[in-house]
Amino acid sequence: MWTITHDDVTAIALGAGILGTGGGGNPYLGQLRMQELLRQGYSVQVMNLEDLPDDALVCEIGWMGAPTVGVEKLPRGNESEAVIAALEQYVGRKFDAIACSEIGGSNSIAPLEAGAQTGKPVIDADAMGRAFPEMQMSTLFIGGVSCNPSAMVDAKGNCIVFDHLEDSFKLEQYARPLCVQMGCTALLAIGAMSGAEVKRTSVRDTLKLAKQVGQAVLDARNTKASFSEAVLNITGGVELFTGKLVDVQRRTTAGFARGEMIIEGLGAHAGGFIHIAFQNENLVAWRGDRHTRQDVMACVPDLICLLESDTGEPITTEQLRYGLRVNVLAIPCTDKFRTPEALKVVGPAAFGYPDVVYSPLHKTPGQGIE
Amino acid sequence: MWTITHDDVTAIALGAGILGTGGGGNPYLGQLRMQELLRQGYSVQVMNLEDLPDDALVCEIGWMGAPTVGVEKLPRGNESEAVIAALEQYVGRKFDAIACSEIGGSNSIAPLEAGAQTGKPVIDADAMGRAFPEMQMSTLFIGGVSCNPSAMVDAKGNCIVFDHLEDSFKLEQYARPLCVQMGCTALLAIGAMSGAEVKRTSVRDTLKLAKQVGQAVLDARNTKASFSEAVLNITGGVELFTGKLVDVQRRTTAGFARGEMIIEGLGAHAGGFIHIAFQNENLVAWRGDRHTRQDVMACVPDLICLLESDTGEPITTEQLRYGLRVNVLAIPCTDKFRTPEALKVVGPAAFGYPDVVYSPLHKTPGQGIE
Repeated sequence: MWTITHDDVTAIALGAGILGTGGGGNPYLGQLRMQELLRQGYSVQVMNLEDLPDDALVCEIGWMGAPTVGVEKLPRGNESEAVIAALEQYVGRKFDAIACSEIGGSNSIAPLEAGAQTGKPVIDADAMGRAFPEMQMSTLFIGGVSCNPSAMVDAKGNCIVFDHLEDSFKLEQYARPLCVQMGCTALLAIGAMSGAEVKRTSVRDTLKLAKQVGQAVLDARNTKASFSEAVLNITGGVELFTGKLVDVQRRTTAGFARGEMIIEGLGAHAGGFIHIAFQNENLVAWRGDRHTRQDVMACVPDLICLLESDTGEPITTEQLRYGLRVNVLAIPCTDKFRTPEALKVVGPAAFGYPDVVYSPLHKTPGQGIE
Repeated sequence: MWTITHDDVTAIALGAGILGTGGGGNPYLGQLRMQELLRQGYSVQVMNLEDLPDDALVCEIGWMGAPTVGVEKLPRGNESEAVIAALEQYVGRKFDAIACSEIGGSNSIAPLEAGAQTGKPVIDADAMGRAFPEMQMSTLFIGGVSCNPSAMVDAKGNCIVFDHLEDSFKLEQYARPLCVQMGCTALLAIGAMSGAEVKRTSVRDTLKLAKQVGQAVLDARNTKASFSEAVLNITGGVELFTGKLVDVQRRTTAGFARGEMIIEGLGAHAGGFIHIAFQNENLVAWRGDRHTRQDVMACVPDLICLLESDTGEPITTEQLRYGLRVNVLAIPCTDKFRTPEALKVVGPAAFGYPDVVYSPLHKTPGQGIE
């Protein structure tokens, strides 16, 4: 168990922004909300995954929505209390702990806010080890944990309970258009899971990982060291490219921010171009020229992360704009996403790129995202 | 109390089809399902509104969806048991009786099926005295009854509970895109209402009315009498037009069947044309020529009903096709829809016709739809 501090939140938000691979919601806004809660005297404990009792009752907490909207439309502030209360009333039992659905982006902070507001510990683990745009893209659901029941609230206090759904694909299919009606942001409390299920299927220690990654970037700012090296030393992976954003096509459609960017090389990469497609998160990076995509450099489920070259700040897809100088990192994903069953859900074909073959980035066992 | 017979179902389905004003779902399919239940030995009691105890717990039952889809995609058959069970589990009490959300179309039969399958009596009243395309268009909600909580199921057993919604407009707004995801047909159990609320706000005796209207048409078939007169003798109102359908524009969009038809006059109306706009149900009828709408002949909330001239069969908007011979009737709606507050919800402006002024059809007190 450790108690979250103001500085932890700063580091987690920064690291989670990087692990968000362009999505997961703006982590800076989550940071401000959480630090305000700490200032008001709230506190939250983080529980190691191995300390979670097998018979504990756990739900996941996470926001759904388009990052382009989330950056403008702020939460009311009591959504996490409301959604947990609704799900507890439905289940007829209190939850013992809160799990994180997605360590990437602001969904790293959402469980901490919920923990602070409800007094429940937050488990140091998540269901992605990154951010992903759709609900079924989760190590828990891929691992056979049920998403039933779940609850969903909006800023106006409207609350909907998913009593029974066939599977997590239906949760995505039914919750997404509701989320659009709710103004493209909604908070979900998902599942009534046992501690044993969460332990078996989660990506472990990812709050710690986000904090380490964030702290490494903060340290590199002070020591003028390389941001890319600082991150990659912890996560593993490679720097794919450095350059300048020269084109962004983006639209907010069906509840997602979708599009493609083109980055022109600088320094050692001068004269080269890469293309990156995204759906909230960065999906596939290709080498190419200004107009043509050629060979794939990295793709989902591995992480493609953009850092602003001057500051090491993660760049989320809603912030993409002409002229940004960026370092593009590729980071190996959790092994739980590398099985054939998982790749059906989170591989490039699942995002509409059936021709892209997933070639796993090299990974050192015991390092990076486990 | 009366017990529904095979012949009652035939007459109710026919009458409800007429009261459906073009929508409410195909009543013939509901008739077949209900008569099959009766053949299997199920039975259902209809309770007069005045016999409902004030402290009874009541929910409404009704299908949501586009009639164009409902005519092809049949229910699984256990939806009403599932949705009532889900709502009872949520409320923590058993319902004492089932109310009808919409007497028009197949939603007249849905509560009877639910009553047969659950052994609960069905109240002889509804919330529209006709059919309407959207959830908030209800004498109950206009009268201040809450739609919370409600439950919604699809044919695959997916079940969603609306725990708390701001109002019935939100129920429409949130349930409609879910319904689209559910394949454009879903069954809802709405509210946990008291008997006193239902008595105060319902349109009374509408199952009896549908049965009388249907029986009158059946009798007119045997006696070769006028179908229009047979209906109007019971409901009040006027025959607006007789003619032939010469144009239909129709699209299934956002969960509705929307469009406009043109009818060319025959007999006494030869040379004339009328236009009728619809959204699942017929909304506004204008005089005009082939290309131009002129003065309004009738509009919502009054009923505009099409009978096939040869058989007296109601014509639903998904059945509209070139060449159909029709009698167009206009029937006065319930007084509960004629207040200024109600007209904001069910008047022509609410359907996108702000220039159409509602001029109530003449009504004889104590006759027709009360």
